[in-house]
Amino acid sequence: MSQPRLVEVRQNILKQNDLLARVLRQRFEEEDVTVVSLVSSPGAGKTFLLEKILGQLHADYRVGALVGDLATENDAARLMRSGARVQQITTGTVCHLDAQMVENALQDWKLSELDFLFIENVGNLVCPASYDLGERLRLVLMSVTEGEDKPLKYPTIFNTADAAVITKMDLASAAEFNLELACANIECVRPGMPIFSVSSKAGAGINELLESLKTLSSSASQKQMRPA
Amino acid sequence: MSQPRLVEVRQNILKQNDLLARVLRQRFEEEDVTVVSLVSSPGAGKTFLLEKILGQLHADYRVGALVGDLATENDAARLMRSGARVQQITTGTVCHLDAQMVENALQDWKLSELDFLFIENVGNLVCPASYDLGERLRLVLMSVTEGEDKPLKYPTIFNTADAAVITKMDLASAAEFNLELACANIECVRPGMPIFSVSSKAGAGINELLESLKTLSSSASQKQMRPA
Repeated sequence: MSQPRLVEVRQNILKQNDLLARVLRQRFEEEDVTVVSLVSSPGAGKTFLLEKILGQLHADYRVGALVGDLATENDAARLMRSGARVQQITTGTVCHLDAQMVENALQDWKLSELDFLFIENVGNLVCPASYDLGERLRLVLMSVTEGEDKPLKYPTIFNTADAAVITKMDLASAAEFNLELACANIECVRPGMPIFSVSSKAGAGINELLESLKTLSSSASQKQMRPA
Repeated sequence: MSQPRLVEVRQNILKQNDLLARVLRQRFEEEDVTVVSLVSSPGAGKTFLLEKILGQLHADYRVGALVGDLATENDAARLMRSGARVQQITTGTVCHLDAQMVENALQDWKLSELDFLFIENVGNLVCPASYDLGERLRLVLMSVTEGEDKPLKYPTIFNTADAAVITKMDLASAAEFNLELACANIECVRPGMPIFSVSSKAGAGINELLESLKTLSSSASQKQMRPA
């Protein structure tokens, strides 16, 4: 197998991705938009959490979202109900978003008209780890039904994230989820990483996460909270 | 981005993988071993289901398993409790198993001493779809907590599978899972594919799945059920 050649080509692509991501990051900073990406397994609840976040931020902030999926535009349709501007990126068979896809999707957007841009990656705990999207903050989600061991089994994606969000806390008891063990496993892989635990269904923990995002946004910019 | 070059190199690798998988498949057939692979999102319950399958088959069949993960040997340790021969394949940062990894892992195995070999892939609903491992049957698992839309969003992996297994049925009610809708979505992507619904925790549905595997094994070979 010519794996070494694949590794070489892949490294070149990652390098080019990093360069473009750097350009995007600078642009986001200049335009004063706080960019937050979400990565997780399929079905961990990225879209549901984003629905809650967009719905609540929309009152006081100008928010937008890009949503990645192999197929369907279902997630974009769900998120649009919040009133935020949303664009789907369908990747076909590609297992992750990259900086080029983000740049292409933003072609018609005026970033200066946004306070927050969320980027929902393809559901995949492996490949998205390698692709910088120029985001300010990367959230890695894991749901209580996936098991407490996921940080140990997928260390790279937890290592490249800035905060972890444990989702579906409403199912914690039914799934016999051990929160303490999950947090210890996250701490083991990425010491000191902030951990939020939420239930998008019950609304628990969403405010704490929102407050952190708002702090991040205000610390990043000179501009104050503005009406939408 | 030099994506076309990546695509070209990847196609070559897939072609080489297909050739090796063909050799493996022939070897499995000659040695009369029924090879079943399992693919799913991280945390969909592949290992738990395998624990149940190995535990029950072990009484009447000679069974073995290969288990893929980026990191940790936890799954192999769990499966070994069944008494079956188990070997972990740790892939590092590679997001899928390939035929070469399977061949390497089996180097010291005598296939003629096995009736069933199970291969648990890395938790990933995208990349494993492209890699033939020489298996006779590919099972795609989805848990009730992931949402009914997963077949529509990850059509390729459902298309390359031979049967679907809906897992964690004990959580169906808590997760407000719509089984009918999930089955319709599977049917939409892969018409006619057999669908099993199981709860590894409660034991529900496991026997039906086992009976199908046994039928597959007996139809594949002239040998009858043998004591372990």
